[in-house]
Amino acid sequence: MAWDVFSVIGTIAFAISGALVAMEEEYDLFGVYILGIVTAFGGGAIRNLLIGLPVSTLWSQEMMFQIALAAITIFFLMPHHLIKHWNRWGNLTDAIGLSAFAIQGAMHAVHLELPLAATIVAAVLTGAGGGIVRDLLAGRRPIVLRHEIYGVWAACAGLLIGLEIFRGDFFLYSLFIVITVLRIFSYTRSWSLPIRKLQYSK
Amino acid sequence: MAWDVFSVIGTIAFAISGALVAMEEEYDLFGVYILGIVTAFGGGAIRNLLIGLPVSTLWSQEMMFQIALAAITIFFLMPHHLIKHWNRWGNLTDAIGLSAFAIQGAMHAVHLELPLAATIVAAVLTGAGGGIVRDLLAGRRPIVLRHEIYGVWAACAGLLIGLEIFRGDFFLYSLFIVITVLRIFSYTRSWSLPIRKLQYSK
Amino acid sequence: MAWDVFSVIGTIAFAISGALVAMEEEYDLFGVYILGIVTAFGGGAIRNLLIGLPVSTLWSQEMMFQIALAAITIFFLMPHHLIKHWNRWGNLTDAIGLSAFAIQGAMHAVHLELPLAATIVAAVLTGAGGGIVRDLLAGRRPIVLRHEIYGVWAACAGLLIGLEIFRGDFFLYSLFIVITVLRIFSYTRSWSLPIRKLQYSK
Repeated sequence: MAWDVFSVIGTIAFAISGALVAMEEEYDLFGVYILGIVTAFGGGAIRNLLIGLPVSTLWSQEMMFQIALAAITIFFLMPHHLIKHWNRWGNLTDAIGLSAFAIQGAMHAVHLELPLAATIVAAVLTGAGGGIVRDLLAGRRPIVLRHEIYGVWAACAGLLIGLEIFRGDFFLYSLFIVITVLRIFSYTRSWSLPIRKLQYSK
Repeated sequence: MAWDVFSVIGTIAFAISGALVAMEEEYDLFGVYILGIVTAFGGGAIRNLLIGLPVSTLWSQEMMFQIALAAITIFFLMPHHLIKHWNRWGNLTDAIGLSAFAIQGAMHAVHLELPLAATIVAAVLTGAGGGIVRDLLAGRRPIVLRHEIYGVWAACAGLLIGLEIFRGDFFLYSLFIVITVLRIFSYTRSWSLPIRKLQYSK
Repeated sequence: MAWDVFSVIGTIAFAISGALVAMEEEYDLFGVYILGIVTAFGGGAIRNLLIGLPVSTLWSQEMMFQIALAAITIFFLMPHHLIKHWNRWGNLTDAIGLSAFAIQGAMHAVHLELPLAATIVAAVLTGAGGGIVRDLLAGRRPIVLRHEIYGVWAACAGLLIGLEIFRGDFFLYSLFIVITVLRIFSYTRSWSLPIRKLQYSK
C-alpha cells in the first residue's frame, strides 16, 4: 500500500520532469506528452526487456497512465510563477520516485532469481532509465551520466537487495528512506563523483 | 491488397527519408543504408516489443527489405536535380506511410485485446517511431516532437480504432484517407501545436 | 576455446572504448562504468532482441561482467602516459572484438534458421551495436555511420556466413583473421566509403 503511494508520487514526478525538459527545449504539446510518458514508464519497460519480464505488463497499469497524463496536462497549463517553485518540490518527489522504483526494480530481479549484476542493472534502469531516454529524446547528454549522483544510489539499492543479507519490510522501508535522503542531499549539497579528465596534446 | 500497396509506398518513403537525413549529415554509404533501414523498420520493431509481439516477425518481410534496399540504392545514385524534386513526392508518400502504418499498428494492438493506451502507443510508434530513431542516430532532436504535426495524427488513428465505435473496411479506408490528407495539410499549411516557452530569470 | 579468448579480448576492448569516450566527455565515474558496460554488452542485447533470443541470457555471462568492470576500473586509474599508448592497442583489440562478435552474432542467426537479412543484421549489431549506443549516450553522432569502415566488415562476415557456401572451423577462423586484418587496415590506411553530399541552394 505504502509502495503504491510512493509509485504514484514517483510517476507524477518523473512525468513532470519529462514535460519540463520538453518545454525547456521548446518541443510542442505532442513532444511534451511523449517525453512525460517516456520518462515515467521508459525505465520500467527497458528493465522488463533486460530481465526477461514481458514488456506488455506495461499495459496493466492503466491508472498510472491516466495519472501521468493528468499531471502533464496540469503542469503544461500551470501559471508561470508556480512552475518556478517546482524545482524544490520536483527534487523531493523525484528522489521518492528514484528510491521507490530502484527498490521495486531490484525486487523484480530477485524474484526471478537473477544474479547480482542483473539486480543492480534492474535497480538502475527502473530508477534512472526513464531519465536517460528523456535526455536522449531532448538531444541532451544524459545528466545522470555526467555529474549528478543519482543512478549510483539506485545501484546501491540494487546491490543491498541483491546480496540478500537483509530482508523483510522493515529493511525495505529503511532502505527507501536512506536512499531518498541521500539523493536529496546529493542535490542540495552538490555532491559529485570523481571525474577523470583527459588532456590530449592535440 | 490495397494495404499491401500502401505499405510498399510507405516503406519506400520511410527508407528514402532515412537515406536523405544520412546524406544531409554527410554519413557514408553504410550510414545511409542503416538510417534508411532503421527508419523503414524501426517503428514496427519497437511496437512489437512494447505490445508483446515477437520482434522476429520482422524477418518474415524479406521482400520489403529488398524493396527498401533498392529504394535506398536508387536514391543514393539519383542525379542532383531529381533529388531536389523529392521534397514534394516525399511528403505525399510519407503521409501515406504514416497513415497506413499507424492504422496497421493500432489493429495489431486491437487484435491482442490490449487497452486503449496500448492501441494509441502502437499507432504512434508504427507511424512515427522509425523517424524518431532516425533523428537520434543522425544526432538531431526528433522533429516529430518539436514542431511538425505528425505523430498526433497517428495518435488520432489509434484512438479512433481503439475505441472500437466504428469497424470494418469502409471505416479503415476512410480513416486512411482522412489521416493522409490531414498530414499533407499539416505540412503544406505549416500547422503547428501549441508550444509553452519557459522564461527563466537566469 | 579460441573464441572464448577472442570474446574476452573484445569485451575488454569494447568496455575500455566506452570508458574512454565517457572520460573524453568528462562524464563522472558512474557514467564511465555505464558507458563501458553498455559498449561491451549492448550490441549483443539488441541482437538478442531482434533475432528472438531471450535477452536475459545476458545474465549468464557473469564472469564477462566482472572482467569488464575490472578493465574499466584499471583504465580509469591508469597513469596518463599509459593511456596515450592505448590508441594503438585499442585499435588492435577492438578489431579482434568486432570480428569475433560479428561472427558469433551471425552464427546465432544461422542456428535459428533465420533468413540472410537477419544474419547480416545480427552480425552488424553484435559487432557494432554497442559502439552506436555508446556514441548516442555520449551525445555524439555514431562514428560507425559516418566515416570509419567498421560495420561494413561485420556485414560482410554476416553475408558470408548467412550464404552458407562455406562452413566449418577452418572457414570461421580464416574469416576471423581476414575481417580483423581488413578492419585494422581500414583504420591505419584511413580507408573510407563513398559519401554523397547534398548541396542545397538555401
